[in-house]
Amino acid sequence: MQSLSTKHLLGIKDLSTNDIQLILETAKEFKEVINRPIKKVPSLRDVTIANVFFENSTRTRLSFELAEKRLSADVVNFSASGSSVKKGETLLDTVNNILAMKVDMIVMRHASPGAPHYLSKKIKANIVNAGDGTHEHPTQALLDSFSMQEKLGDLAGKKIAIIGDILHSRVALSNIFCLQKLGAEITICGPNTLLPKYISEIGVKISHSVKDTLQWCDVANVLRIQLERQQIKYFPSLREYSLYFGINKQMLDELDKEIVLMHPGPINRGVELSSDAADSHHSIILDQVENGVAVRMAVLYLLSQQI
Amino acid sequence: MQSLSTKHLLGIKDLSTNDIQLILETAKEFKEVINRPIKKVPSLRDVTIANVFFENSTRTRLSFELAEKRLSADVVNFSASGSSVKKGETLLDTVNNILAMKVDMIVMRHASPGAPHYLSKKIKANIVNAGDGTHEHPTQALLDSFSMQEKLGDLAGKKIAIIGDILHSRVALSNIFCLQKLGAEITICGPNTLLPKYISEIGVKISHSVKDTLQWCDVANVLRIQLERQQIKYFPSLREYSLYFGINKQMLDELDKEIVLMHPGPINRGVELSSDAADSHHSIILDQVENGVAVRMAVLYLLSQQI
Amino acid sequence: MQSLSTKHLLGIKDLSTNDIQLILETAKEFKEVINRPIKKVPSLRDVTIANVFFENSTRTRLSFELAEKRLSADVVNFSASGSSVKKGETLLDTVNNILAMKVDMIVMRHASPGAPHYLSKKIKANIVNAGDGTHEHPTQALLDSFSMQEKLGDLAGKKIAIIGDILHSRVALSNIFCLQKLGAEITICGPNTLLPKYISEIGVKISHSVKDTLQWCDVANVLRIQLERQQIKYFPSLREYSLYFGINKQMLDELDKEIVLMHPGPINRGVELSSDAADSHHSIILDQVENGVAVRMAVLYLLSQQI
Repeated sequence: MQSLSTKHLLGIKDLSTNDIQLILETAKEFKEVINRPIKKVPSLRDVTIANVFFENSTRTRLSFELAEKRLSADVVNFSASGSSVKKGETLLDTVNNILAMKVDMIVMRHASPGAPHYLSKKIKANIVNAGDGTHEHPTQALLDSFSMQEKLGDLAGKKIAIIGDILHSRVALSNIFCLQKLGAEITICGPNTLLPKYISEIGVKISHSVKDTLQWCDVANVLRIQLERQQIKYFPSLREYSLYFGINKQMLDELDKEIVLMHPGPINRGVELSSDAADSHHSIILDQVENGVAVRMAVLYLLSQQI
Repeated sequence: MQSLSTKHLLGIKDLSTNDIQLILETAKEFKEVINRPIKKVPSLRDVTIANVFFENSTRTRLSFELAEKRLSADVVNFSASGSSVKKGETLLDTVNNILAMKVDMIVMRHASPGAPHYLSKKIKANIVNAGDGTHEHPTQALLDSFSMQEKLGDLAGKKIAIIGDILHSRVALSNIFCLQKLGAEITICGPNTLLPKYISEIGVKISHSVKDTLQWCDVANVLRIQLERQQIKYFPSLREYSLYFGINKQMLDELDKEIVLMHPGPINRGVELSSDAADSHHSIILDQVENGVAVRMAVLYLLSQQI
Repeated sequence: MQSLSTKHLLGIKDLSTNDIQLILETAKEFKEVINRPIKKVPSLRDVTIANVFFENSTRTRLSFELAEKRLSADVVNFSASGSSVKKGETLLDTVNNILAMKVDMIVMRHASPGAPHYLSKKIKANIVNAGDGTHEHPTQALLDSFSMQEKLGDLAGKKIAIIGDILHSRVALSNIFCLQKLGAEITICGPNTLLPKYISEIGVKISHSVKDTLQWCDVANVLRIQLERQQIKYFPSLREYSLYFGINKQMLDELDKEIVLMHPGPINRGVELSSDAADSHHSIILDQVENGVAVRMAVLYLLSQQI
């Protein structure tokens, strides 16, 4: 059996293409598992996993928790509210305490970019980055690529557009790295104020026209406007965003080709996507969610072989 | 084996009398289970249930969680705080995301009346309403009827009083529907300001005298004053409520008959019930709590047959 | 097999020396269990334990939860936020409700000293005090003594210093009682403003010199400055505390003997302990955390024999 060349999943940037492909292959098998009547396998029996979330999350925490339970792991949840973090404990002390209780793997979300990378140099357990600020969110990128492959086959040469608020997204960068390693062409589309400065230096095309971008791409991965992170100055108004960058079903139907519509959720209906677009036959948004559990099972399973 | 004629438990209003009786019969068996040394059955092994609580709850959430675990289901908890709800996601999107992760049943509490009914038309999984605003709380009504039957046998012709803050209660309406379907006579007793306007149109007697009501009834189901929902204008003061509508042990002892005292909790001791009444031999308040687990096991078990 | 002479663990004050020794002996066996590849035993299968935390906690709640899961108990968590406590329910009613749902043991943390003692007179289930205000925290004292014994053998005649903020600590008093029953000599060291008034009456030496204390002791158990409980008036500044009572590695290295450094966590690095001291070979701080799970398994296991 093949195995990963890493014991942590910190980001896509440093993940080899072989490792990415191994995860995606393994996820296919776990997708079959979660679609059987008996959705569990005993693979991680006697492995204890702590979900350590220093930032709030619904879908990601729930998706990991279900992935862990499907693998028969023992699961404990730790959230920053109600924790020693408020009492001034360092991140490393908090995690070392959890590990001293014989926890084998840590799934962590943290507001600070690089937090899991820092920890990975200090501790022995496997770490899975479930989002570090606006930096990386590797399992999201993997489930996105898995979902695209499921629809389109090999991604080499495929045209993928990432549309929206790139600046405040933790999803964009991981997606770009993953798609580049899988050989896809990438266009980033959004208003200048929502693009990071480094965007011109990482090998992607840039567009400010949604119409042109949709015409070009095989897949439109539409990111959410991060209402909660955004400062008012970045953009005049949501209405304006919706007017110039929002996507509706008519725009997709009028294309003279098939297009795959994706969104990492939660959707702001009526802002970046109209309701009829989100619910159209172009959309694979709920497949992404389903695939998330399978991909996370694959990641946890493969990392657990590296303890 | 008999089965329910519905795949959701949204409210008592649309539940058939047959279905109610099937649930109450089945709950008897599960009450035996939870009183054995081994309190678990494998009935819902490989069924995944999400408890989705958009409003806080202690006893209801805990009671469902224990019912699910006694049935060997896989359980995940989701609460609105720390969730995508704050990020502007629609209710349907939130629930569809949870279901895409291969969750089989949703137990939900929501502040908006009708929220579970709306969802039931859009999704495939079983839904159990664990309270929708001040509308219905069907499992509470079922456990109340179960507890009365346990004490009094068949409820046909039995005289049941529901006393207190009907207006802000999610328990009252479900109880009225359930008791009517089981053939009981019902009197509602409380100050006019705490009775809803529709109360005169749903086939119940109305009284403003606690003394007369206690004299009349076999069962007094005393509701709590919803301190946290109530606006100051509704009622002059808690002291005044307690004086005119509060029930103490002496009032119960002086009746020339047996009476059963119930309360859905949490009790405001010294307001709607004195401590000596709540702790008296008339009270079956803690039996209600115990029966809650058995009734919820019955509901979950029977609905799971309808997937 | 030996058994405890109590069905609750409320505090160390009323625990017999025999009981303490039985717990510490039993914990040794469980420490072996949690260091095996298969970290679970079926001892508490079919026992339901509720962790009822009216105050926030990370490590204690997690440690108990892992101990319970290693023993194969069914676990439910209840925290005060999002609970009936806010709706004005009494503590006894809250706990009686939980118990009516067939919960066998209660692990509780409460802000009020004596809360678990009060409950133990009213309910039938086993209670474990996981901290009652600044009063007792018996499992912390037991794991501390376990960790000292592991390092030093029999504690009779051993010299133990407890250094720091005794006044706001829930750890100090339990440690003093436990060590006295095991025959150790105790010195308390800290600024007068952080010592409770009763300290001179409970058979311990008092020192205001960290240097002298370190010279005297075999073990230095350094408590944290409870930033979050402390009023500004108690102490001029953290910098001043650190200057006069803080411990660094050099101070430990310069002693002409072995010394064991302990801390119940969370550590304020740079206040009561320097980072180089906390991470030095003198420190057994992470052993304490590991031993915590074993000791709690022993407590829960032994109490469950007393149902």
